[in-house]
Amino acid sequence: MLRTHTCGQLRPDDAGITVTLSGWVQKARDLGGMTFVDLRDRYGITQLAFNMDSNATLCEQARKLGREFVIQVEGTVRVRESVNKKIPTGEIEIDVTVLRVLNASETPPFTIEDNTDGGDDLRMKYRYLDLRRRPVQANLMLRHRVNIETRKYLDGIEFIDVETPYLIKSTPEGARDFVVPSRMNPGQFYALPQSPQTFKQLLMVSGFDRYYQIVKCFRDEDLRADRQPEFTQIDCEMAFVEQQDVLDTFEGLVRHLFSTVLDTEIGDFPHMTYNEAMRLYGSDKPDLRFGMVFQDMTALTQGADFKIFNEAETVLGIVVPGGASFTRKQLDKLTDWVRRPQIGARGLVYCKVNEDGTTKSSVDKFYDEVARENWVKQTGAAKGDLILVLCGGLDTTRKQLGELRLHMGSELNLRDPFNFKPLWVIDFPLLEWDEDTARYHAMHHPFTAPKPEHMGLLDKDPGAVRANAYDMVINGVEVGGGSIRIHDKDIQARMFDLLGFTPEQAEAQFGFLMNAFRYGAPPHGGLALGFDRLCSLFGGVGTIRDFIAFPKNNQGRDVMIDAPSPIDDTQYEELYLSSTAPEND
Amino acid sequence: MLRTHTCGQLRPDDAGITVTLSGWVQKARDLGGMTFVDLRDRYGITQLAFNMDSNATLCEQARKLGREFVIQVEGTVRVRESVNKKIPTGEIEIDVTVLRVLNASETPPFTIEDNTDGGDDLRMKYRYLDLRRRPVQANLMLRHRVNIETRKYLDGIEFIDVETPYLIKSTPEGARDFVVPSRMNPGQFYALPQSPQTFKQLLMVSGFDRYYQIVKCFRDEDLRADRQPEFTQIDCEMAFVEQQDVLDTFEGLVRHLFSTVLDTEIGDFPHMTYNEAMRLYGSDKPDLRFGMVFQDMTALTQGADFKIFNEAETVLGIVVPGGASFTRKQLDKLTDWVRRPQIGARGLVYCKVNEDGTTKSSVDKFYDEVARENWVKQTGAAKGDLILVLCGGLDTTRKQLGELRLHMGSELNLRDPFNFKPLWVIDFPLLEWDEDTARYHAMHHPFTAPKPEHMGLLDKDPGAVRANAYDMVINGVEVGGGSIRIHDKDIQARMFDLLGFTPEQAEAQFGFLMNAFRYGAPPHGGLALGFDRLCSLFGGVGTIRDFIAFPKNNQGRDVMIDAPSPIDDTQYEELYLSSTAPEND
Repeated sequence: MLRTHTCGQLRPDDAGITVTLSGWVQKARDLGGMTFVDLRDRYGITQLAFNMDSNATLCEQARKLGREFVIQVEGTVRVRESVNKKIPTGEIEIDVTVLRVLNASETPPFTIEDNTDGGDDLRMKYRYLDLRRRPVQANLMLRHRVNIETRKYLDGIEFIDVETPYLIKSTPEGARDFVVPSRMNPGQFYALPQSPQTFKQLLMVSGFDRYYQIVKCFRDEDLRADRQPEFTQIDCEMAFVEQQDVLDTFEGLVRHLFSTVLDTEIGDFPHMTYNEAMRLYGSDKPDLRFGMVFQDMTALTQGADFKIFNEAETVLGIVVPGGASFTRKQLDKLTDWVRRPQIGARGLVYCKVNEDGTTKSSVDKFYDEVARENWVKQTGAAKGDLILVLCGGLDTTRKQLGELRLHMGSELNLRDPFNFKPLWVIDFPLLEWDEDTARYHAMHHPFTAPKPEHMGLLDKDPGAVRANAYDMVINGVEVGGGSIRIHDKDIQARMFDLLGFTPEQAEAQFGFLMNAFRYGAPPHGGLALGFDRLCSLFGGVGTIRDFIAFPKNNQGRDVMIDAPSPIDDTQYEELYLSSTAPEND
Repeated sequence: MLRTHTCGQLRPDDAGITVTLSGWVQKARDLGGMTFVDLRDRYGITQLAFNMDSNATLCEQARKLGREFVIQVEGTVRVRESVNKKIPTGEIEIDVTVLRVLNASETPPFTIEDNTDGGDDLRMKYRYLDLRRRPVQANLMLRHRVNIETRKYLDGIEFIDVETPYLIKSTPEGARDFVVPSRMNPGQFYALPQSPQTFKQLLMVSGFDRYYQIVKCFRDEDLRADRQPEFTQIDCEMAFVEQQDVLDTFEGLVRHLFSTVLDTEIGDFPHMTYNEAMRLYGSDKPDLRFGMVFQDMTALTQGADFKIFNEAETVLGIVVPGGASFTRKQLDKLTDWVRRPQIGARGLVYCKVNEDGTTKSSVDKFYDEVARENWVKQTGAAKGDLILVLCGGLDTTRKQLGELRLHMGSELNLRDPFNFKPLWVIDFPLLEWDEDTARYHAMHHPFTAPKPEHMGLLDKDPGAVRANAYDMVINGVEVGGGSIRIHDKDIQARMFDLLGFTPEQAEAQFGFLMNAFRYGAPPHGGLALGFDRLCSLFGGVGTIRDFIAFPKNNQGRDVMIDAPSPIDDTQYEELYLSSTAPEND
């Protein structure tokens, strides 16, 4: 080893011993008689001391070291005169006797500091330098920790890691596949998995009983902010279980992760039905760090002369604590905010509850003090609060007010990233109607089981059928989701039929699964947790990109290695392909 | 849970308790008054007892259960009258009171037994049923165990798991890439990684210090026996190390795996240079479970009238212990064996050392007793041994005799799969000359560092340059390999030049790496272990396919899901591709 200790290891107890350290020059300070160099590695920073009096040549050498030079030093540990309390090694320094430059460095394109001067694009191009920065390293070490603890926990309760294939079969259902042309099978393609869904179900049919995998998945979708074409899932499945067993198991996992990785004990996860979540928060992933639950004001607001409310399908409000102090300007800004195309509300009605109990609203013309007092009473608003009201179609209004609620939560600093509020959202609809294609789509996926007691509705009212499907939500983020699966070949066939598959299509794409169900498939269910998302949540940072070593940009490009890139003519020929791309020669 | 216990759990101490079990019907035996059903799950087998006298309806129901039915039973644990010592639960049985069929099963296409009647093709098509068989499940559980213990060990010595991307850049050097067309970047392709080589080196440049990953890799090569287009690697890299550090670290890992997974303590790994391995075993992955090291008989055999030896570049022999008892027929068979096209020797010379010390060879005409006694003396053959001799060009003869040696080892049962003999083969050549392309190729890969003391040879005699490259070999199998890497941009550029890259090609393909080396790259090195191979070695089975849940066949097909398969016209259009495959419409 080119070192005897790391740069984070030495303490006053080590004083007097001779050590060899290797690392990067973080910075050098030339104080005339003395030169100090901060030597950095993954484990910490250690101060190196060079003395002009005792060894001028060596000190001159040290003065020439640039930022990010890789060096190796030998020397003696000594207790420092002026302690640096900011770092664990701050009580010692190395009295250097030998200095070797292992590799020089040009001046990096941005500073390797916690707060760098490098912009996003530059940092992505030189990601290997960005990864030297302490916060980025900390993110990836956190990711490693979450990975290891996940495995420990699941291994401890008999889950086994089984690797499923990456070169699988393209299926048009769902999101778009990345495909891989097969040279050995001309005209045919593999697909990269969007998830190991069918394979993990087959493993249950095989009797593996409890399966997990931390696995890459791929989706060729237009990349919205903070989506990656390749992402990682903690993918799990269990046999002989009912919904509650799955919830208990993975609540246990996540509680273990909070406890071991963040030293945070979080309690039991409340359960909330999809209907309730939509009714109270206008979202299937409610952020429970703060209240402001929806108040249905439809009945309350009828009968007055206010046409907009009278004609609306629904009138919904939230009570903003302490919001009565909002100025007219702030309220106008809020109105502008809800009117932006991203939200799309037509307007915003407010009602302040003054400290003296009186009220003041933007619709005083239509609702007198008595009517408004009734609003206050029914919504539970207190003195000093503000009621914000939106109206319109049910789904639209819920969505808009849900956004406004989150916005108010942020404005009032009620969304501390390290205050974790988890829950299970359960009883999701099995199907959702898609206006564009005029047919039902699977809300989770085609393998989700209808609730047994809803089987009778499958023909009569498919949209009313609920599934034993569940999402784990923390702080408004869907951390994962899953379901109890269909394990009966007839129900699976019927499901494909409902989703618009012909029997031939179903057979061609999923014949192997329906076939597997003929030979003794056990009841089973599972879930998948978004690993990137979970890590970013644990790290208190909103973006998953900060928790991926080599992420791609919004065009799906890796700007560091410059991929994707053109391929050779030979490669096209071998794959029996030709390009129809505009620019291609 | 649809059970209170697993089928491997109950013991006589549990007698009297009421339990619920779920699993598969392994077999049912109808003994008239009693019906016994063996219920199977991943954890074991438990006997269920149904009594005609006490509950005729239930017993009738049990009699109708077919093989592989999935059932749930409730009943009471009781001690069995006739103990089955073959299974851990053999002392108890369940007196069943409730029986529910969770899912029926058609008769499986082959028996779900340790020794099945199903052929390879059938078992691959119904892999989900093949995976129910105990030996196959045991293989995958062993794989899980090796995985977990690898992580534990590496995590314990500060390695961190960093996920590298799967959608990377195609590089024509080396094996053929699988490529992935990019819809968002028309005419451009990603490649699936053949290994995370450059990324792990970049992580060292980033200061991650110790990296590992258990990661899928992809190679689009014609599939020889027991090669898979996707395979798994334990991929590792370390900074600030020299060769010995890497060897020590991963010798430690593998020793830990043997100890924890197989309860086998294996000693230190001997080191053998590439030259020595070739000289003594004719192979860079010698099987050390038995001797029969090569004896150079070139000088010994010259000067007689035997033209074939006189004209040969080399004459090599091995001493087969106890081989003097081989019959004429056996020896003829051996001669046929070496003459097969796969081996390609022109003939085989033998010399028996009789129990009385006299000798008898196939070339007595040319070598008298005195000459032959000299052979015996020089090769160290003992009474009762057999000397087998091949001759010809050095490389060819070594290869042929190496094969013959392995063959003799197998014939004499000297290759017990559970007798593990590991070693490190070191000092590999940096380059190998390729006759076809008339240029040097990298023996490991273009990032391997020449030995510092051989730098001077790079221009004068590139073929003589040795690298700090090493392979871990166990029982004649290359389990893994690695090297100290180049970390200097100029040496890396020179290496690309030697390998026939123009500066432009080197820049286009590996510019990011050479650029990274400008900013303080530390000395580093690492290795990758073939995970599939390692598991098959631990399992004592030659084929890696038995240790992969869903393997592909020799045409790269997954016959179970029927992939690869054609894609839609829309998919071609979106990817700016058209097919030139013969059969494609």
